[in-house]
Amino acid sequence: MNITVLGTGIVGQIIAAKLAGLGHAVTIGTRDVEKTLAKNTKDGMGNPPFSEWYNQNKNKSKIKLAAYADAAPSAELLFNCTSGQASVDAIKALGNTSKGKILIDVANPLDFSKGFPPSLSVVNTDSLGEVIQRTFPDIKVVKTLNTMTCFIMVNPAIVPGDHDVFVSGNDEGAKTKAKEILQSFGWTNSNIIDLGDITTARGTEQLLPIWVRLMKSMNTPMFNFKIVKA
Amino acid sequence: MNITVLGTGIVGQIIAAKLAGLGHAVTIGTRDVEKTLAKNTKDGMGNPPFSEWYNQNKNKSKIKLAAYADAAPSAELLFNCTSGQASVDAIKALGNTSKGKILIDVANPLDFSKGFPPSLSVVNTDSLGEVIQRTFPDIKVVKTLNTMTCFIMVNPAIVPGDHDVFVSGNDEGAKTKAKEILQSFGWTNSNIIDLGDITTARGTEQLLPIWVRLMKSMNTPMFNFKIVKA
Repeated sequence: MNITVLGTGIVGQIIAAKLAGLGHAVTIGTRDVEKTLAKNTKDGMGNPPFSEWYNQNKNKSKIKLAAYADAAPSAELLFNCTSGQASVDAIKALGNTSKGKILIDVANPLDFSKGFPPSLSVVNTDSLGEVIQRTFPDIKVVKTLNTMTCFIMVNPAIVPGDHDVFVSGNDEGAKTKAKEILQSFGWTNSNIIDLGDITTARGTEQLLPIWVRLMKSMNTPMFNFKIVKA
Repeated sequence: MNITVLGTGIVGQIIAAKLAGLGHAVTIGTRDVEKTLAKNTKDGMGNPPFSEWYNQNKNKSKIKLAAYADAAPSAELLFNCTSGQASVDAIKALGNTSKGKILIDVANPLDFSKGFPPSLSVVNTDSLGEVIQRTFPDIKVVKTLNTMTCFIMVNPAIVPGDHDVFVSGNDEGAKTKAKEILQSFGWTNSNIIDLGDITTARGTEQLLPIWVRLMKSMNTPMFNFKIVKA
């Protein structure tokens, strides 16, 4: 499949590499290709600059890099891996090329303006997933994978045994397609929990406040939530 | 121990009965004893009126009922089982009898004013646990047990295998005491996750938005969260 990944951060890199490894034709979208490639500083988490990763991966995985306006014309599926604060602008920059497409939204509206732990910039009676769906009614938004580190998103076997991934969205066909992608990442059907329409993204985005605190108290992002039933 | 449980709803009943069963001397606090006993309608979840439960339990368990002002003078520990919206007023009504005491806060700031699913009336950069701690600086607040149905709070074995309970609070001694109570309820030490100070209650209270949606999609409240580590 032709898949466009929005965002050049660690989440976009990990998702793009996984999709390419599965045989998809992947284009990464960014605001400014030259600026993205010229950046030579590590990110806030200490990950190397995008260009370093890209130089190692572009030939091996045939991953393309393009400005948003040129990234998605032939895409059959979009992955939003931008930061939550940048998501709406990034999708806007796709212009008409996003119309009618499925967007898998893994972003969270984290607000680091007051430091760590972040609060949420959209919360309680709204969610980033809903904001995106409302702003782009022609896109089919499926919120998923946003409740774990990107390393587990594409390789659930890192965490032993059963643990879960949540799905929220208004379009059943889009959710079916998203679940197929999840299964190709290694998620078993019994660990994919469909919460309902896109308003249920309020539930998964509000897992982040405990996620960031668990990461701090456990000193690792390598964990996931499991819903255990009686 | 002398323990006062604030709140006569199903959570207060289940906690009071468990504590009494463990040999504690339990007093349930309420706004107006006569009114509480005169109520003859089921609650929003279809549970029988308090008086029906109380008549079956008061002799068997020697549970007392008292107005807030008279409920806590000899208490060594307080349990907040009121609804989140009523918690501050209930604790205020204890007057000076709350001073210096540990309060185990299991309430959530659920706002049902727009129907189901509820939103949160305190959220994101604050939490009910913090509101209570701030309003009553002489009380040692420990937030715990608020992320599951009351039936699992007092009987974790209902849910098979490992699953977790979270603890938040500023006072280490109070948290140690709360953890002892949790262990007496059946929680093993490895399933008690201490998140840190009372601000971490933001994390556990914001689990409610997904909890209420999971309850709806799974059609049962009989489940709990487990943090699975890599």
